[in-house]
Amino acid sequence: MTASIDFNSIKTQKGRLLETIHETAKWGAKGKWGPGETETGVCRLALTDLDKKVRDWFVEQVTDLGCQVKVDQVGNIFAIFPGQNEGVPTGIGSHLDTQPTGGRYDGVLGVLSGLEVLRTLKENDIVPHYPIALVNWTNEEGARFPMSMVASGVWAEAISLQTCLDLESFDDVPRKFGDELKRIGYAGETPASYHANPLACHFEIHIEQGPILENEQKKIGVVVGGQAFEWNMVTVRGKSSHSGTTPMNTRSDSLLATSRIITMAIETAEEHGGLATVGTLSLEPSSVNVIPLEVKFTLDVRHVEDAQLAKIMNVIKKKTEEIATTSINTKYAKPLSVTFDNITTSKAVKFNQTNIDTVKKAALSLFDESQVREIVSGAGHDSCFTSTRIPTSMIFIPSKDGLSHTPEEHSSPEDVENGFQVLLRTVLIYDEMRAKK
Amino acid sequence: MTASIDFNSIKTQKGRLLETIHETAKWGAKGKWGPGETETGVCRLALTDLDKKVRDWFVEQVTDLGCQVKVDQVGNIFAIFPGQNEGVPTGIGSHLDTQPTGGRYDGVLGVLSGLEVLRTLKENDIVPHYPIALVNWTNEEGARFPMSMVASGVWAEAISLQTCLDLESFDDVPRKFGDELKRIGYAGETPASYHANPLACHFEIHIEQGPILENEQKKIGVVVGGQAFEWNMVTVRGKSSHSGTTPMNTRSDSLLATSRIITMAIETAEEHGGLATVGTLSLEPSSVNVIPLEVKFTLDVRHVEDAQLAKIMNVIKKKTEEIATTSINTKYAKPLSVTFDNITTSKAVKFNQTNIDTVKKAALSLFDESQVREIVSGAGHDSCFTSTRIPTSMIFIPSKDGLSHTPEEHSSPEDVENGFQVLLRTVLIYDEMRAKK
Repeated sequence: MTASIDFNSIKTQKGRLLETIHETAKWGAKGKWGPGETETGVCRLALTDLDKKVRDWFVEQVTDLGCQVKVDQVGNIFAIFPGQNEGVPTGIGSHLDTQPTGGRYDGVLGVLSGLEVLRTLKENDIVPHYPIALVNWTNEEGARFPMSMVASGVWAEAISLQTCLDLESFDDVPRKFGDELKRIGYAGETPASYHANPLACHFEIHIEQGPILENEQKKIGVVVGGQAFEWNMVTVRGKSSHSGTTPMNTRSDSLLATSRIITMAIETAEEHGGLATVGTLSLEPSSVNVIPLEVKFTLDVRHVEDAQLAKIMNVIKKKTEEIATTSINTKYAKPLSVTFDNITTSKAVKFNQTNIDTVKKAALSLFDESQVREIVSGAGHDSCFTSTRIPTSMIFIPSKDGLSHTPEEHSSPEDVENGFQVLLRTVLIYDEMRAKK
Repeated sequence: MTASIDFNSIKTQKGRLLETIHETAKWGAKGKWGPGETETGVCRLALTDLDKKVRDWFVEQVTDLGCQVKVDQVGNIFAIFPGQNEGVPTGIGSHLDTQPTGGRYDGVLGVLSGLEVLRTLKENDIVPHYPIALVNWTNEEGARFPMSMVASGVWAEAISLQTCLDLESFDDVPRKFGDELKRIGYAGETPASYHANPLACHFEIHIEQGPILENEQKKIGVVVGGQAFEWNMVTVRGKSSHSGTTPMNTRSDSLLATSRIITMAIETAEEHGGLATVGTLSLEPSSVNVIPLEVKFTLDVRHVEDAQLAKIMNVIKKKTEEIATTSINTKYAKPLSVTFDNITTSKAVKFNQTNIDTVKKAALSLFDESQVREIVSGAGHDSCFTSTRIPTSMIFIPSKDGLSHTPEEHSSPEDVENGFQVLLRTVLIYDEMRAKK
């Protein structure tokens, strides 16, 4: 049987994907949150012994399916399922590494859904028009080596090979990315490069990691891109003095100014349809009866449009200046100095319209329009890097309570199955489309 | 010559008090802030070798003046300058210990101004009607042994002897108060008790440690009491989630709620004529792209009236509940849980009217009414404990920029001299009044 769009004739093994997810969770199961055997998270940091075990298992599985396996210079594994024609493979992929307090689904769902696609094709004797490459990207989380999505970044030639290989781990005795890659046997020879080792496109299925699909009772999110974001370290410096002896009208309370800035920044982002979060904050000198001299906090601001993000940041900086230098409603907390130090700015990602349409078509072949929704990814993914070089899009399934990066991270068995079905159909529709060109 | 109110006939040694202050600063000089030899602070923690040195020097000085020296069970030194009559001594005192980042004046000014009073009486052959006890209270700062004003507290029988002796120091190898007292030779046998070792009254001269006198160009503050204050640990608990994937209207951002609470609490205190300060704040989990789950901060609220302090706290708690449980202006940041855990509540201190009038009379014998001001102490002092048992009041001199607990703490030579003159006259007026009873 050749690839075809008669989806109803394809037999799938319902529940097998979830079983596979739970099977691989044995390599790193951690963080028990319920009585059931599968009610734990997973801690499987990149290039550790546990990562080696799941990689070895993965290579064995795809080899059994007849795939050719290529490992590139940063440990990305490309499992090439043969097609009827030679040609650049259709890419699907995600990552098998996790956060230290990771769940069972983040990343893992994407790689194992891809494996389930290959298994299904094999069992149904479907040979696609073109090869399919199932990719396991290295160190997506940036949890052990502090650069998220670094290996898809090298592949996309956005990050240099050497930068990646020289990354030092957060271990007590820090180890280099390149050394750990060799130690576990995944320092491959395939060039880590989108043009030396190309993919025709990239599809990635992932948990949403947010509450939108669940709240709106949607089954599938068709991901159209990723938000722009900017991180700043904000330093507010006032005057330290005794809490009992300093009248209000002579204070320069850096924490009072900070409190106003935080409230204003979050309200400003919200008014413009963006997001703002202060996730870290520290103050000096930190004593109950001393007015803080200096507060430092990180400000994470996001918007789906680059221009809107820039506008929000402008408003926040302008209003911060007003809070710091003039009296706002009250006569105290002035004047202070406030500085913004940019940590990182990431442009908005726009996925390829053809790929978005393909995912949508696949989703609508299974569900009503009311059950499918376009969505913008709030988090970064390997697809954000692949999208800079090749047509890319993503599929989201609901996350229970919007939780992720925690052992309780959960998606229902039904949602896991739905996601796989959409991925399978997406790949086959895209393959058919390539053949017709 | 006997004690008299002909102040103009008394010869004083202008500048000697300041010289003495600088002389004793050699035991602990630290924190250079200017080119001059005296431009450092002092670090002389209670019951250290440095404290022993300044105590030994102090005992030598007062013994030379003909004082009888008594050391009580918590190391308080009572130097009794004889009077014409037997009787309970008129007390003056303060403390020779400092903060780790202390200046040259906090506490030291009070003890050495008392010494200068005794020197002046001696040189002028003035024998007061009643004895004068100059007191060096132990560990006022609570910086080495974590209980401020503990030794005057034991003397006032507000704190038990054993509690004090068992206090453990903040040293790397903690040491007990009682053991250190023995080690430096200041574990005396005089009962630490206001009725076994009484004083007729207590006058204390101190730097203001705030900016009021300086800002209003006053020479002398006549201290009428101490503020009431309440410290709480406030815990705000929301929901932790990803900063990029969590829409604003589904967040329970504990730091946003905290920012609103801090602003509201400070504004509420100010509206009621009180003070509010948040001096410490910590949050979990503390990651740039994670909405904080929990924030803990200390809230220090003060007012000169107990009833007003209670009212402010009620308003703050009520408004906090509103912020935590309902939408205020925006639709996010709800609902959260907020708890207030009381750390300490300290009642307002009212000094004795006769003592206040005595200080005022002394001050007005030297300065215009426009140069003298009644003031409430923002900080705690040994006089707060003595005032619970004996007639007490205090004299403040201006603090440059309101600074204290920092090496730059400064009062001008003129202000130091003024303070001493007011203390001298206060003691003589009070002594005369006792004789006339």
